Amino acid sequence: MQYELYYWPGIPGRGEFIRLALEDAGVEYVDIGKISGNKGGGAGAVSEFLHGGEIGRPHFAPPMLKAGDIVVSHVANILQFLGPRLNLVPDDDASRYWANGLQLTLTDFVSEVHDTHHPIGSSLYYEDQREEAARRSGVFVQERLPKFLHYFERVLSTNAGNEPFLVGDRHSYVDLSLFQVVTGLRYAFPRAMQRLEPEVPEVAALADRVSQRGRLAAYLTSDRRLDFNEGGIFRHYPELDT
Amino acid sequence: MQYELYYWPGIPGRGEFIRLALEDAGVEYVDIGKISGNKGGGAGAVSEFLHGGEIGRPHFAPPMLKAGDIVVSHVANILQFLGPRLNLVPDDDASRYWANGLQLTLTDFVSEVHDTHHPIGSSLYYEDQREEAARRSGVFVQERLPKFLHYFERVLSTNAGNEPFLVGDRHSYVDLSLFQVVTGLRYAFPRAMQRLEPEVPEVAALADRVSQRGRLAAYLTSDRRLDFNEGGIFRHYPELDT
Repeated sequence: MQYELYYWPGIPGRGEFIRLALEDAGVEYVDIGKISGNKGGGAGAVSEFLHGGEIGRPHFAPPMLKAGDIVVSHVANILQFLGPRLNLVPDDDASRYWANGLQLTLTDFVSEVHDTHHPIGSSLYYEDQREEAARRSGVFVQERLPKFLHYFERVLSTNAGNEPFLVGDRHSYVDLSLFQVVTGLRYAFPRAMQRLEPEVPEVAALADRVSQRGRLAAYLTSDRRLDFNEGGIFRHYPELDT
Repeated sequence: MQYELYYWPGIPGRGEFIRLALEDAGVEYVDIGKISGNKGGGAGAVSEFLHGGEIGRPHFAPPMLKAGDIVVSHVANILQFLGPRLNLVPDDDASRYWANGLQLTLTDFVSEVHDTHHPIGSSLYYEDQREEAARRSGVFVQERLPKFLHYFERVLSTNAGNEPFLVGDRHSYVDLSLFQVVTGLRYAFPRAMQRLEPEVPEVAALADRVSQRGRLAAYLTSDRRLDFNEGGIFRHYPELDT
């Protein structure tokens, strides 16, 4: 199976959650957004595919994954599609619904991170909503960030062992996604994270452990891995990191 | 199978998307939040179940559905679990991933509706974020609301027929959810919807057709159906309906 990932070039964004699973599994995939426009890739190709031409099923937003005749959009949906195929989720139904539920909590978490710098609208510049962003970030850092982190700490503690995992007794795609969220938060809110990480040692340890997985570690130091930047979800605006 | 729904009492909220599927299918379920506290229900029972005691899997937020040994949380996750069991989604994999993707777009839509009145934080009163709410609602009504509605119109038009459906050639749980969103929007933003509905006739027609399905029509006029109110997702604040 040749997988094709459709995501905007230039930012890790939501596409990165899919890349992490594909890279960790060591499968081949074509990252359409990163191919130059001359060669049929780039933002133009992503945008065209979004409208669903060939199969008559328009999608709302990237990322989208094409796998043969099936096209799947939304991060959690793509990961539950890939999970069994990449051996990144347990076999039983109860664990798969549990994994998908955790991934959807991460989806909400990521969306709230995005809205710290865009509380009024994605179509406006950050500079045009700085005041509201400061206020929303205050509530985020004070209430929401600890709430989400403590939640995942509780999940890890409940699923205890020497090396706890979010689901079952091996790493799943949800662990890879939590790694990405923690890494993004360390970039965007370094002061808040430095204060909070000691309260969630299992979460911090999981993120560090995931980053050392063989193929993933190689990917993270390769030039395929995109740096966080101020065009993405996780942005470092020091004035929001209170 | 005896289903148990765990959701906060007093508001339709996200729990209503689950009720619509169960009611449309005519299956029995226990709505724990609506049972009195004396009898082991109510908000206390929902809150206790949230923490996942008996199975050691804490959930982040209601709704949760218990079906035998499986507990599922997040609306889209619950609906994809119920879909095949209630005969509310086609059989083939491609259609199921497509249905789940559409449902996740509705999840995002609903979350943006919520944030029109709570752009700074859910823990603050509306009255403490009115100014920001007015600004965010302006962008929502001007840009996001038409974008989402036109998207679903395009999906319906692409999947054409005399009576189009979002997925396949029969009503699915996604149609029931779109009905709920349109109904909520008519309550919360009556002026904006009156202006926009003529631009999205298939969406409006779908919502009306769903409301006339036998068991669903009976449910909607029963006292089990909760009215929209200013404690929920869809709130009517005339000053936000520009």
